[in-house]
Amino acid sequence: MRSVGRHLVLELWGCRNLNSPDAVEQALREVVAACDVTLLDLRVYPFEPIGVTGVAVLAESHVNIHTWPELGYAAIDIFTCGARKDPTAALPVLREFFAPERIESMEMTRGIVLRRGTPVEEPVAAGAD
Amino acid sequence: MRSVGRHLVLELWGCRNLNSPDAVEQALREVVAACDVTLLDLRVYPFEPIGVTGVAVLAESHVNIHTWPELGYAAIDIFTCGARKDPTAALPVLREFFAPERIESMEMTRGIVLRRGTPVEEPVAAGAD
Repeated sequence: MRSVGRHLVLELWGCRNLNSPDAVEQALREVVAACDVTLLDLRVYPFEPIGVTGVAVLAESHVNIHTWPELGYAAIDIFTCGARKDPTAALPVLREFFAPERIESMEMTRGIVLRRGTPVEEPVAAGAD
Repeated sequence: MRSVGRHLVLELWGCRNLNSPDAVEQALREVVAACDVTLLDLRVYPFEPIGVTGVAVLAESHVNIHTWPELGYAAIDIFTCGARKDPTAALPVLREFFAPERIESMEMTRGIVLRRGTPVEEPVAAGAD
């Protein structure tokens, strides 16, 4: 099946360090390293009174972290294009930084290319890869 | 059901204007206006040879656009936190800018807060809202 990439959707509950911009930034950097992707830009935004958003723009799409410390919750998306990238490589890093009691996860295959007469196809190298 | 927000996942096929950083930037600005959300930062990254990534960081989470002009495909995510925000308000804007022949969509409710003994609850105002 040809597709452009994998999008891992994570819900982390019972977390620590959610109000730390430094933890979010460092987690993003280590996720980028663990997934072996190319960082184009990294931005972290602390909110008042609490909460942090961190955005890593990749040559292979993006990693976004949004935190709600008052709920112990973080919404994390890791979208990696390219056949050889594995967004689940981020999980040990996220466990280390945020120590979640529970993780809910879903992975979406983005950009599935359907072609007639080619039932088994290789993943496509994405334009942004 | 209390939750932090709504995350609309869109797959646009048969699109035009996918290799235009200006179109991606303007689409992001008009999506932000249509969804009545607060823009914190907007960045657009053209790729060589083709493809564009556009990232809008919101007080209410994010809007991301990644394009693959060679496939006529765009992967778009619109994550809006806060009970009164509606990410589907972006659809007319995206139709206008990219003229997709086909749109596949899915909406995820992010950060569902489950509490015992409270079967019906109001959406929660998110920390970043």
